[in-house]
Amino acid sequence: MAPFEPRDAGWQRRVRDIFARQGALALLGAKITELEPGRCVAVAPFRPELGQQHGYFHAGVTSTLADATGGCAAATLFGADGDVLAVEFKINLLAPAHGETLVADARVVRSGRTLTVCSIEIFVDRDGKRSPCALMQQTLIRVASSAS
Amino acid sequence: MAPFEPRDAGWQRRVRDIFARQGALALLGAKITELEPGRCVAVAPFRPELGQQHGYFHAGVTSTLADATGGCAAATLFGADGDVLAVEFKINLLAPAHGETLVADARVVRSGRTLTVCSIEIFVDRDGKRSPCALMQQTLIRVASSAS
Amino acid sequence: MAPFEPRDAGWQRRVRDIFARQGALALLGAKITELEPGRCVAVAPFRPELGQQHGYFHAGVTSTLADATGGCAAATLFGADGDVLAVEFKINLLAPAHGETLVADARVVRSGRTLTVCSIEIFVDRDGKRSPCALMQQTLIRVASSAS
Amino acid sequence: MAPFEPRDAGWQRRVRDIFARQGALALLGAKITELEPGRCVAVAPFRPELGQQHGYFHAGVTSTLADATGGCAAATLFGADGDVLAVEFKINLLAPAHGETLVADARVVRSGRTLTVCSIEIFVDRDGKRSPCALMQQTLIRVASSAS
Repeated sequence: MAPFEPRDAGWQRRVRDIFARQGALALLGAKITELEPGRCVAVAPFRPELGQQHGYFHAGVTSTLADATGGCAAATLFGADGDVLAVEFKINLLAPAHGETLVADARVVRSGRTLTVCSIEIFVDRDGKRSPCALMQQTLIRVASSAS
Repeated sequence: MAPFEPRDAGWQRRVRDIFARQGALALLGAKITELEPGRCVAVAPFRPELGQQHGYFHAGVTSTLADATGGCAAATLFGADGDVLAVEFKINLLAPAHGETLVADARVVRSGRTLTVCSIEIFVDRDGKRSPCALMQQTLIRVASSAS
Repeated sequence: MAPFEPRDAGWQRRVRDIFARQGALALLGAKITELEPGRCVAVAPFRPELGQQHGYFHAGVTSTLADATGGCAAATLFGADGDVLAVEFKINLLAPAHGETLVADARVVRSGRTLTVCSIEIFVDRDGKRSPCALMQQTLIRVASSAS
Repeated sequence: MAPFEPRDAGWQRRVRDIFARQGALALLGAKITELEPGRCVAVAPFRPELGQQHGYFHAGVTSTLADATGGCAAATLFGADGDVLAVEFKINLLAPAHGETLVADARVVRSGRTLTVCSIEIFVDRDGKRSPCALMQQTLIRVASSAS
């Protein structure tokens, strides 16, 4: 993919605001660790409240983190008044998400006028080793910011 | 679809246990409201911690509840030692999940020896009116229970 | 779902034209058998050129017919200058598509200003018996007709 | 991803046989151009019979070629008696598939005992330039060969 150029000088603050305003991400303890045009990486630490019946990260938690990073990766390329909504996504759970930290790494694969498509790789860190645990393909729509 | 016959006399308790052991569902405040062979309905009440940036249920929360009901619907048809893992799912977010209660209604559409496919309709209740807000299609795999 | 109202008096001819202009559907020998606002059913007869390695309808053929009926179901609700493009779809192959005739039955589940979501059930007819063989969930976008 | 080791000395012939026995691929004029453990690339030349209403490759044709290469990529890693069936796939149509040749490049992203997951990038070649036109994420199941 070609490198992406942001269209809004304030893209970093705007995207971090989108992330910060999502209560569900605070509930996960999620934090952005990397942010560049067309890309967003975020992490969440494990705790039992984020688990499924075997003590791994719940597929829904994995989806929540992945969905959020995809939305933020898409929004890095929007104009100043652009907000983002997920249209749909599909996730394959490749391996048990067994570890201390969940990592979602989202990249824009198509940036259109109306729709953006992201590919999100999800990893789990365990004892210093990072392994892939899920793969998401996501479609997003640009909407006017409610504040604009 | 033909009506489904459970293969395990203790299916109700086994499936409720699968639900109860998922920390992420307790975090959502989720509860099963209907359970029959090949079907599971669950609800979660809104609170800001479950929201996205516009104050609606987060797509990840919607996915978590839907994924969990699909898993439980699938597990109703398993034998006594059967546990369930999601292989993958795809969700379309049809409308903002704006309301007091999220409702996920999962039905088995194919029950195979190894794989089960579910269709899950997700609704939101607002001021006494129920509206569709998402639709999920999910693939699950039967695995031996860790307790067996 | 509420019944749908077409916005274009010429919707039937417009949608049948969309179907007729698709070379890939002629190659399948596909025909529309039912068309109503928000719904389209089409069929294709088996021949070995449509098969996979076991002599059943190829998953790609199943997808082609399902995708086309979803597009036509969506287009029934567009205005006179509206054409349709698939944004994405996801299909579960529930059972071998072993039979004489493939049948795809598409229904609109959300009709938005920009995006439409369809659910498509695919069946196979064999010796007079109809069985489900696949299930598709599809997102479409309305575009201006190239003729307009 | 780690490099993949085939488990069957005759994997190349076995996989090319799977491809060759699919009538639908002959109908597309599809050919394998690269085959290595965990990867398969195939192409199909445009002709109007493979088109949709705007004269581009039909989404169903794109799906058929992508699905087939994913199946073959998965099958490169199976034992001598292993055959492959698609469980489900999801495809995003990123751009009009407008060109002379469609190219699908499939890679295994998870090779499990029962299930394999592939990621397939689809390109279109036009006037000597290759552009991405679709992205597929696919789940496959290993089944015993009908000949075994």
